[in-house]
Amino acid sequence: MIISLIPTAQDIIPESLNNKSAVMFDILRASSTISTALANGCQQVIPVLEVADAFALAKKLPENTYILGGERGAIKVPGFHLGNSPLEYTSQVVRGKTVILTTTNGTKATRLAAAGAGEVFIGSLLNTSAVANRLLARNRDVALVCAGTRGKFSLEDTLAAGMVVRELVYLWQAKGTKPLADAKQPAVTQEIYLDEVPLLEGENLVLEDAAVAALRLAECYGANPLRALYDSLHGQKLLQLGLEDDLAYCSQVDLFDVVPVYRDGKITLNP
Amino acid sequence: MIISLIPTAQDIIPESLNNKSAVMFDILRASSTISTALANGCQQVIPVLEVADAFALAKKLPENTYILGGERGAIKVPGFHLGNSPLEYTSQVVRGKTVILTTTNGTKATRLAAAGAGEVFIGSLLNTSAVANRLLARNRDVALVCAGTRGKFSLEDTLAAGMVVRELVYLWQAKGTKPLADAKQPAVTQEIYLDEVPLLEGENLVLEDAAVAALRLAECYGANPLRALYDSLHGQKLLQLGLEDDLAYCSQVDLFDVVPVYRDGKITLNP
Repeated sequence: MIISLIPTAQDIIPESLNNKSAVMFDILRASSTISTALANGCQQVIPVLEVADAFALAKKLPENTYILGGERGAIKVPGFHLGNSPLEYTSQVVRGKTVILTTTNGTKATRLAAAGAGEVFIGSLLNTSAVANRLLARNRDVALVCAGTRGKFSLEDTLAAGMVVRELVYLWQAKGTKPLADAKQPAVTQEIYLDEVPLLEGENLVLEDAAVAALRLAECYGANPLRALYDSLHGQKLLQLGLEDDLAYCSQVDLFDVVPVYRDGKITLNP
Repeated sequence: MIISLIPTAQDIIPESLNNKSAVMFDILRASSTISTALANGCQQVIPVLEVADAFALAKKLPENTYILGGERGAIKVPGFHLGNSPLEYTSQVVRGKTVILTTTNGTKATRLAAAGAGEVFIGSLLNTSAVANRLLARNRDVALVCAGTRGKFSLEDTLAAGMVVRELVYLWQAKGTKPLADAKQPAVTQEIYLDEVPLLEGENLVLEDAAVAALRLAECYGANPLRALYDSLHGQKLLQLGLEDDLAYCSQVDLFDVVPVYRDGKITLNP
């Protein structure tokens, strides 16, 4: 199983994702909001690029069956029910509803990745272990797709990808010696030596260089992921807007055991 | 002073490097070989893209004044004096000579960066501190340009860039409180908290996200950079070719106090 990492949406070559499992990370805040909404019982999330697309789609749905959510410049879109803070997507608000979510980086990255991989898992710190387990069960080569910030490498998305890599390595190591149920390691930073990752059924877990770098980020920040969000450009921008509660929320590891899946234009838990 | 990092030669936009200090890293092995040759007294290194260019240039130079060096597929080019192992570029062989060096990734990255920045420093683990000091003295925004491996992110180049970032942060912190001569920190991994980097003359040291990630790589691998070379795809390839001595050599930090500078097609210590 080969683990590659695509640093920004701009770097996605859809054909390179054929026959791979793809995971999209846009953890501040689209990925985190999507995971939260679905974990809290929303029926489906439909990501759209433009505000106009969101309103047009809403007109086609029966009243009271949908929630309009999303931001521009990290601020709620006028006329929408919700912004892009995962804290707004409570069970009371979203249960049974369709969430129409407009984000830019994450939606673009997800669509491009889906054009090659068919379906795309939505990853965040909130569901690191669930994503890693799904990837292992699916047993295909993996592409970890980071949305990036304004076309550039983003620290927080790469950290989340690295946390999935770290979990995959733990699971892979454990699979060789003990049942998966016991595989979870204590939540401490523990350096992984790549040459100690064992062979399994004649196959190795191969990390491309960018995946190794992400793994090292996970080792650096694993004990305190919030630190990475504070070290990141986008995190600093959200802090300036007074959104420190969002950062604290999005920094939680394994809050949910859900894997949102994007397929055919919508995100659900069981496509 | 803003520190950015460009992950591969493909990501270079020359215009974005105007008025910046640019450093090129291709540490396995071009950057390391160039630093070694110049530290060992070679007069200049002329990097060329193609083998034919190297032979054509050699014909124009007086006999015994030049050395033809370089590789294809990590193997010495037939008819050349030397390959691309820095261990071959001893004082006895290169002193006073012009080295005509053909490499692919590094030469391409250097030329592209120079098209924007005018001149380009050549960075490696071998001259981390010298490069950091030069950048600080020059006092421009910095672009750390990693050559990458076959168009992809390379762990070893990013580590070297991160070691320069770490040194810059130390120097910057020290500059505020004590003379530069005392600035060098003990060679231990010591986590840097970005909000502890002090303001200086009304200006801050700003690390873009990719530079922060590189800094974290430096913290992970700083006590044992050779580990990163073994974890990297290109390092593994060189190991398969029996070149473990080259890896060990290239992993040495601050072996030389030299900063090779590329300008107008050639690399020297004092352009």
